[in-house]
Amino acid sequence: MTPTITAFERSPDGGKGLARDTRVRWALEEVGQPYNVRLVSFQAMKQPAHLALHPFGQIPTYEQGDLTLFETGAIVLHIAERHSGPLLPDDPNARARAITWMFAAINTVEPPILELVTARILEADKPWTKDRLPLVMDRVRDRLQQLSARLGDADWLDGAFSAGDLMMVSVLLRLRASGILDEFTNLSAYVARGEARPAYQRAFEAQRAVNTGRSAPC
Amino acid sequence: MTPTITAFERSPDGGKGLARDTRVRWALEEVGQPYNVRLVSFQAMKQPAHLALHPFGQIPTYEQGDLTLFETGAIVLHIAERHSGPLLPDDPNARARAITWMFAAINTVEPPILELVTARILEADKPWTKDRLPLVMDRVRDRLQQLSARLGDADWLDGAFSAGDLMMVSVLLRLRASGILDEFTNLSAYVARGEARPAYQRAFEAQRAVNTGRSAPC
Repeated sequence: MTPTITAFERSPDGGKGLARDTRVRWALEEVGQPYNVRLVSFQAMKQPAHLALHPFGQIPTYEQGDLTLFETGAIVLHIAERHSGPLLPDDPNARARAITWMFAAINTVEPPILELVTARILEADKPWTKDRLPLVMDRVRDRLQQLSARLGDADWLDGAFSAGDLMMVSVLLRLRASGILDEFTNLSAYVARGEARPAYQRAFEAQRAVNTGRSAPC
Repeated sequence: MTPTITAFERSPDGGKGLARDTRVRWALEEVGQPYNVRLVSFQAMKQPAHLALHPFGQIPTYEQGDLTLFETGAIVLHIAERHSGPLLPDDPNARARAITWMFAAINTVEPPILELVTARILEADKPWTKDRLPLVMDRVRDRLQQLSARLGDADWLDGAFSAGDLMMVSVLLRLRASGILDEFTNLSAYVARGEARPAYQRAFEAQRAVNTGRSAPC
């Protein structure tokens, strides 16, 4: 049964691929699973019908038969577990390590990046933001320094490309506008390798098409 | 083979159970898996030997035979997947939903709580913190409001207790000192139900013993 995901009717980033449905689209493209998209307005996201699917009123959600999931990480892991393909290795230990990198991306690397996004957007007009921003940026740099040291000159975080890399590249992409990513040559190249994957390209184009009005997927 | 986890030699919270090894201890206790603990000093956490296990220089780690994992979420999921018991239901859809709540805990509910911890501790002496703190607290309240609405008068987030509840209770425990948790009666009761579980009690006592010098587990 073809799964249906939800995405922003109009993404706040205007189609730059930073909305979290891109991560799910990318995972679906990596395993060759076709999918439907239902677009949701900001207003509809806070209504009971959508809150029944996603208690925090966000996108994406994932519906397939009588299963409904929310949370990007859980959806990507579900897709990875239920399809053979590049997202999870067959070896049990390598598989557990790939899942570790998924959690590292969203629970260790992303939180300071979310703080930076909050400081730059939600608190942009606050009197403290100019003085506070360097501290927040340094906390992001601390994490990237450690990630950069671990990656070294490898192509991916642990052997072949996996769902861990999908999630880490997606998280790091949020930093591009800040310029911080460019301070770490190997991480910039790592992100570029992720973006160059045909599955990412298809996912990116699909979400961009929604936001530039080139097509109306559903 | 008995797994070995790492924990703080001296936890910053002095044994209140907020260090992340408590979450892993709790999971191990729920499935009845004995474990060894290796204590690590703040200094040793930043040295190459520990960084080889945990690239971000934190605890906990998990070693079992030739497998090394880091990231609390990944470790708890690994334990849940490899043992029958209360952490993951047998039904595939219920299992996917329990994993969804694990991700919701650490990627949707915990980030604003981490921001609050950062504001109250790392930025405690900054001139902006007094004016900024109410904003940060309101962002936490927004998430708790949504979580509280979903939980309603149920005991657990989705049917029986699962690893999703283990993680959500652990995340919410970080809020107790702020007083915010007390604003949501059903969430306070939910956290208390988690703390009342015998497995949590054993995990809590084990980490407290380390930090009060009552024993030296290894």
